[in-house]
Amino acid sequence: MEEKQKLTIVKVGGAIVENTNSLSQLLIDFSGIEGYKILVHGGGRLATTLAESLGIKTEMINGRRITDAETLEVVTMVYAGSVNKRVVACLQAVGINALGLTGADMNIIRATKRPIKEIDFGFVGDIKEVDGGLLSTLIEQRIVPVISPITHDGKGQLLNTNADTIASEVAKSLSEYFEVELIYCFGKKGVLLDENDDESIIPTITKKDFEKLKEEGTVNKGMIPKLENAFAAIEAGVSMVIITRADQLDGLSGTRII
Amino acid sequence: MEEKQKLTIVKVGGAIVENTNSLSQLLIDFSGIEGYKILVHGGGRLATTLAESLGIKTEMINGRRITDAETLEVVTMVYAGSVNKRVVACLQAVGINALGLTGADMNIIRATKRPIKEIDFGFVGDIKEVDGGLLSTLIEQRIVPVISPITHDGKGQLLNTNADTIASEVAKSLSEYFEVELIYCFGKKGVLLDENDDESIIPTITKKDFEKLKEEGTVNKGMIPKLENAFAAIEAGVSMVIITRADQLDGLSGTRII
Repeated sequence: MEEKQKLTIVKVGGAIVENTNSLSQLLIDFSGIEGYKILVHGGGRLATTLAESLGIKTEMINGRRITDAETLEVVTMVYAGSVNKRVVACLQAVGINALGLTGADMNIIRATKRPIKEIDFGFVGDIKEVDGGLLSTLIEQRIVPVISPITHDGKGQLLNTNADTIASEVAKSLSEYFEVELIYCFGKKGVLLDENDDESIIPTITKKDFEKLKEEGTVNKGMIPKLENAFAAIEAGVSMVIITRADQLDGLSGTRII
Repeated sequence: MEEKQKLTIVKVGGAIVENTNSLSQLLIDFSGIEGYKILVHGGGRLATTLAESLGIKTEMINGRRITDAETLEVVTMVYAGSVNKRVVACLQAVGINALGLTGADMNIIRATKRPIKEIDFGFVGDIKEVDGGLLSTLIEQRIVPVISPITHDGKGQLLNTNADTIASEVAKSLSEYFEVELIYCFGKKGVLLDENDDESIIPTITKKDFEKLKEEGTVNKGMIPKLENAFAAIEAGVSMVIITRADQLDGLSGTRII
């Protein structure tokens, strides 16, 4: 069997790409990653700002945005339009052949509207299928997909989908074709043992460690789904997941999930 | 030499895609076109509406939008985000493997910021180069590009570009690979001899006819650049240009430019 080539998938939040300085830094760091790569971005605060300007109320439950029709329009404009295309243009400027995508484009990510249980999340999509074969064909042509957190249901409906989940599902589907390293960027240098000490980075977390950290309350609300996504990715064949800060994409810093 | 395959490029205005009924009709008509195809869309009024809601003044000179930084942000959100992705999702729903693109994506359309002469159009791009080779590769993979009127300068700057011009430049660059038919859709069934009689469609217009129609004042301000684009396309190798209404994509109706 041929040895799989390395593919790095970097997920950054909206905060990184909406700030000109941190975006420039990201572009330098991202272009420094050798081999095949994919960028998955969020778009958080910009969507909230636009919604506010338009008098649309933003409602969040457990850190997830309730997406009514108007909010879907806003997130589609901000994530798939403004953020995605700005990143693509900037990557092109540094010689990276970026292609901005939503899940609807070439049907790469099919989702289903989240069923209404206790909470009606509105037009939020849970991922059903990622077309890893098609993505791998693009990647082998040296195209760098830049994926925004918008998917579709295949029946004409766009859906808002969590960018962390997109990153892990894309990573999983591509682990068949590549040796995938998934890097989640957030505001801190890694998962912290003490939230008041930015240098107290936990170098590695195993599944067993994770259970213990949860019990002790060391990992907080926002970190739990991130780590759950990370472990799900590892179990599905992804080689390594790293949680770090966007200016530390060297593959050595941050917290490794193994 | 192998015979070239047929490629149909349809350009529709923003008015068609922002109305649910006309969009549904367009999808039916567009999916009925046999062989390879591309959709180029505008996004006119929606951008104006969003700009108004955000308190951004829309300034038009000779039918062209003056694009300051705020307006560029608005048109990028509306054209590349809202309109483009809605069309892509709807085409996917009828089994067309659509891929939404701006000129920045895979660097397919490189433009330069229009030089300031009498008027400063702001972030408006004049097309320098279309990557016909790459587009033809996509098309041969049965991918249907859906192109929004946003280009880039290759240095990280997105630019607002007239959709009619995009359609004709894309048509020109692809005429090397395909027998290209370019269909411009607008509100009327064709170029009219009498603007008060919607049925007075001129079946064909030659370059000579055009000069005469201009002299007589039969063709109006908005139609002149459209026809100029059409003739430029024909001169560059495009097989046929048709000017018609979006519900008449049969390739037989409207005005033919020959």
